[in-house]
Amino acid sequence: MGVVVQTIERADPAVIARLAACGVATVHEAQGRKGLLASYMRPIYSGARLAASAVTISVPPGDNWMVHVAIEQLQAGDILVLAPTSPCEDGYFGDLLATSALARGGRGLIIDAGVRDVADLTAMKFPVWSKAISAQGTVKETVGSVNVPVVCAGALVNPGDVIIADDDGVCVVRRDDAAAVAGKAEARVAAEEDKRKRLAAGELGLDIYKMRERLAEKGLKYV
Amino acid sequence: MGVVVQTIERADPAVIARLAACGVATVHEAQGRKGLLASYMRPIYSGARLAASAVTISVPPGDNWMVHVAIEQLQAGDILVLAPTSPCEDGYFGDLLATSALARGGRGLIIDAGVRDVADLTAMKFPVWSKAISAQGTVKETVGSVNVPVVCAGALVNPGDVIIADDDGVCVVRRDDAAAVAGKAEARVAAEEDKRKRLAAGELGLDIYKMRERLAEKGLKYV
Amino acid sequence: MGVVVQTIERADPAVIARLAACGVATVHEAQGRKGLLASYMRPIYSGARLAASAVTISVPPGDNWMVHVAIEQLQAGDILVLAPTSPCEDGYFGDLLATSALARGGRGLIIDAGVRDVADLTAMKFPVWSKAISAQGTVKETVGSVNVPVVCAGALVNPGDVIIADDDGVCVVRRDDAAAVAGKAEARVAAEEDKRKRLAAGELGLDIYKMRERLAEKGLKYV
Amino acid sequence: MGVVVQTIERADPAVIARLAACGVATVHEAQGRKGLLASYMRPIYSGARLAASAVTISVPPGDNWMVHVAIEQLQAGDILVLAPTSPCEDGYFGDLLATSALARGGRGLIIDAGVRDVADLTAMKFPVWSKAISAQGTVKETVGSVNVPVVCAGALVNPGDVIIADDDGVCVVRRDDAAAVAGKAEARVAAEEDKRKRLAAGELGLDIYKMRERLAEKGLKYV
Amino acid sequence: MGVVVQTIERADPAVIARLAACGVATVHEAQGRKGLLASYMRPIYSGARLAASAVTISVPPGDNWMVHVAIEQLQAGDILVLAPTSPCEDGYFGDLLATSALARGGRGLIIDAGVRDVADLTAMKFPVWSKAISAQGTVKETVGSVNVPVVCAGALVNPGDVIIADDDGVCVVRRDDAAAVAGKAEARVAAEEDKRKRLAAGELGLDIYKMRERLAEKGLKYV
Amino acid sequence: MGVVVQTIERADPAVIARLAACGVATVHEAQGRKGLLASYMRPIYSGARLAASAVTISVPPGDNWMVHVAIEQLQAGDILVLAPTSPCEDGYFGDLLATSALARGGRGLIIDAGVRDVADLTAMKFPVWSKAISAQGTVKETVGSVNVPVVCAGALVNPGDVIIADDDGVCVVRRDDAAAVAGKAEARVAAEEDKRKRLAAGELGLDIYKMRERLAEKGLKYV
Repeated sequence: MGVVVQTIERADPAVIARLAACGVATVHEAQGRKGLLASYMRPIYSGARLAASAVTISVPPGDNWMVHVAIEQLQAGDILVLAPTSPCEDGYFGDLLATSALARGGRGLIIDAGVRDVADLTAMKFPVWSKAISAQGTVKETVGSVNVPVVCAGALVNPGDVIIADDDGVCVVRRDDAAAVAGKAEARVAAEEDKRKRLAAGELGLDIYKMRERLAEKGLKYV
Repeated sequence: MGVVVQTIERADPAVIARLAACGVATVHEAQGRKGLLASYMRPIYSGARLAASAVTISVPPGDNWMVHVAIEQLQAGDILVLAPTSPCEDGYFGDLLATSALARGGRGLIIDAGVRDVADLTAMKFPVWSKAISAQGTVKETVGSVNVPVVCAGALVNPGDVIIADDDGVCVVRRDDAAAVAGKAEARVAAEEDKRKRLAAGELGLDIYKMRERLAEKGLKYV
Repeated sequence: MGVVVQTIERADPAVIARLAACGVATVHEAQGRKGLLASYMRPIYSGARLAASAVTISVPPGDNWMVHVAIEQLQAGDILVLAPTSPCEDGYFGDLLATSALARGGRGLIIDAGVRDVADLTAMKFPVWSKAISAQGTVKETVGSVNVPVVCAGALVNPGDVIIADDDGVCVVRRDDAAAVAGKAEARVAAEEDKRKRLAAGELGLDIYKMRERLAEKGLKYV
Repeated sequence: MGVVVQTIERADPAVIARLAACGVATVHEAQGRKGLLASYMRPIYSGARLAASAVTISVPPGDNWMVHVAIEQLQAGDILVLAPTSPCEDGYFGDLLATSALARGGRGLIIDAGVRDVADLTAMKFPVWSKAISAQGTVKETVGSVNVPVVCAGALVNPGDVIIADDDGVCVVRRDDAAAVAGKAEARVAAEEDKRKRLAAGELGLDIYKMRERLAEKGLKYV
Repeated sequence: MGVVVQTIERADPAVIARLAACGVATVHEAQGRKGLLASYMRPIYSGARLAASAVTISVPPGDNWMVHVAIEQLQAGDILVLAPTSPCEDGYFGDLLATSALARGGRGLIIDAGVRDVADLTAMKFPVWSKAISAQGTVKETVGSVNVPVVCAGALVNPGDVIIADDDGVCVVRRDDAAAVAGKAEARVAAEEDKRKRLAAGELGLDIYKMRERLAEKGLKYV
Repeated sequence: MGVVVQTIERADPAVIARLAACGVATVHEAQGRKGLLASYMRPIYSGARLAASAVTISVPPGDNWMVHVAIEQLQAGDILVLAPTSPCEDGYFGDLLATSALARGGRGLIIDAGVRDVADLTAMKFPVWSKAISAQGTVKETVGSVNVPVVCAGALVNPGDVIIADDDGVCVVRRDDAAAVAGKAEARVAAEEDKRKRLAAGELGLDIYKMRERLAEKGLKYV
């Protein structure tokens, strides 16, 4: 039943870099508040921010064989996105696999399961967003698939979609939407700059966004 | 149905400062082990410790409109305390709102929901204790209330109550009890100093607290 | 019903040190992927790594009396392992108990419940792996037992078993197996060194571990 | 620290009966969508529906001593509402306590913890809404309080408040609001009757509630 | 941003009926162990089993406006599949909406959120599989979408896909795969009949499936 | 690494029957409040009560191969007790395996994972206590062990230990303690009979158990 799709399309690296610069919260807003992975996906260390093309992995619970298969499919600028076929917190991935992924151009890992060797991964600056940290080992007995659509932490990820990840979590942007979303995200960043200054000067959002009248219409009472 | 209470009473700032100095665990003990918010409320960065007067916000799930309303009610030394009317992990609050809150004297945020832009909030040193970190955006469609009693993470918080928060979590002290609790908390700190020295010297709690006889009465057997 | 076992056997300190050097993930693999505590057991600060002999504590929910009893049983190089008799997140342990434990030779705490004063414990470099951080205090009314077998976070821990703990979590090794497991773990570390170099050079796990044929047999298709 | 308040005010039994007839979902709507306990509070058997006056119990984790104290405070038509001071799933209550509560006029139990002997309680038709079913026993060592305000499953309950409970969960109505809420709830029931008929006949809510124009204004597109 | 897709394709009703007859566990196996919704999706009453075409609904947290919109899109034999855009347990759906859905040919509801009026829904025999039972009401302020692809309880559901649901949970079959999967599922049912008889007669799976040799090869030891 | 222990000792069937008659809550109390499995272990249908000898199964996540192996080891009056080596909710067990287990004398299943075909199992009156109900299938690729000690839902279970299970949950009694525990449990049942009558007559536990003086000593105040 296992399939490895060897040829996938990726977004323009320049567009990916623009999305990385905007960050998860802004990109998520810019594309209409969709594509966010569940909030239980947390980085193993603070301060990482990246955008990269998804190489997806569908695996059985407790079996990491397909990670080796996926690493061969990595190109520079890709990120591994792993989803088990049923909930699992085992540690599918550690420092040896990270060493291999880095050597093949991998930028990091998004895993709806567990990761281990996190002290080493942190030292290597190999960023991982995971559901759990767990030393629980896995077997290599059952095949899965690489570069098929997966649901990872509640979000559909297609191979070649753009993953944005930072301390706020992980967001996916469809490959075909990447340029348009980058444009909207950059527009938001620019627009926020002016608002940030006004808010920092003590002006209220109530006034900047002209909310008072609508609040009154909706029945808000001041007492 | 929404109400904004514009005039609330606050505790004496000097008392609030004394509570901050004692920290959550000591204050919680000093007031008889009550007022603690659920342990899932975690700081977005380590090392913050504060005490502040609560400006409370009751909001619908996924709607952060009332945060703007609440910020206008902030006075120097206040902290926002947000509780949704049903469980929600959306990111109600980010760096723009923090900029605004800071400009109006706000000291931080206690939120039984999600927060975003945590890298920025950390850089700004705007402390937040939250249930989740999530970039999931919210709408501005439904009114709620400001400065009404709320149940936040399992604890009742009235506007003007004193919030103490540090790496151990978050505790609420009734405004009228603040001075008395501060006194008891300081007494505990003083009493602990002597015990810490004796324990550090190798004396046992069993002896310092004279527990051996009562343990035997309760049936503890050494074998 | 409470019992304190005063004499327990411990593993050889030299063996314990060897296990510490290998870390949780490697030790766990070396002993056949068993003995791992649940992944919700997290360190209160990053970077600690230790191995130590377990002094176990069985306690009622919300009652930390037996911690004082257990501290008297500590020898240099021991670690406290606390399991409540039903699920509880209260803060059983704080800086005074840590001061006492340190003074008696204790190395840290594994607790399937809550811990408090984590800022102090971090400053003291007293490592704790816990289910929760909580300031919620406890009483001293009901006896439990010290140095009896306990199930802690899903793993059976006997007094004198070796606990290995680091950023990946916590693992227990039976006292009698410690030397054999240390040997196997060191062999794994040595074997990984060569593989790490080959992977870093870009060689694939698929080739190093000769997986391609077996994957094909299992039906993996490349498209 | 323990207190037993022996005299509490209760709502009019006729009003309580009217609230029972309306059920949780309708009462909750009628009072402005507040007062609902967390959805993890589930009945031990299906089909029970009641309204009753709350006799509240604040207990330590794992200690059910105060249940005996509370039963003495029951009057005919009351319901016990138990909240532990920190999260606990122990089985505080079983068939003997239910026998006693029934004999004193008790109508049931709302417990933010565990219950046991559920086969017996079901046979006795003693309804319980609980967080858990657990045979885990408790001790009788530490006092708590009876008839003080408690936060139970996220909702503030004052002694004498009216509890409505059915297969949908549990809702609390302030004693002073009971008559007004009953009136609003009955009005909703009446209003729903007509709508139910029209909907059953195939008419659409979109038309009955005249939603189409406002949906279009908000930007809904039919494609 | 809201869209209502008015024309969707559905699978052949005869095929859908065949899938219903096979049940969730068999259909899930037959299509290669994919398409299962998360195990937290539970029926509000036991004994229901159905297969139906999905009319999907994407909604904001705490806002059920689009359910009214979706009901207009129902055809006989359809089932509503609702997914909020962020986790929510509110009671989006009750007996009035069920009355309306039934009148328009709806067969039931799959909802990754809460449902209420469950006693009424049970009496009406309107089956619902939900994440929670909750009386918590919702607002009608923000538009969502109908008949767009959604991720519901971890599974991707396209409008017109076939939903199979019974006491074991909920499974989705792609519309285009429905006939093939029905065939495979029926073949499984037939094949199981013979095995069930042999197993009931005391023959072992070890022998029927000829597992002994392979177990020995994998290293299983009998002691 | 897999081992099947073919010869295990069991408790006296007459003793097991006496334990069954007492039920989980009473047995748990009688043996000093220990041996209870986690409260998330729930029966798939109400009303089952049994006691039986444990045949234990240790399995990898998502792999049910060893269930077939374990069934061969069943004797009349045994119950299967399955624990995965890491958390898993897959449906390891369904109606075919139940048919086989029944044919070999099996009485039911305790599984710290998922079960499927629950409508069939209910019709067959094959009782199961599980962590989840899930149709998610498993593979048969990796060996585990049968009749080794396992930690199941937080409790240590040795092969041949007595499992008691009813609507309150699941409890384990060590084989060697079974007769003594049965005696104590029966004594509790007898003693409760008198108390039940007195409580039913309206007498208070406060008086029957003479609690008033001790409550006053502990500081309980009536106001």
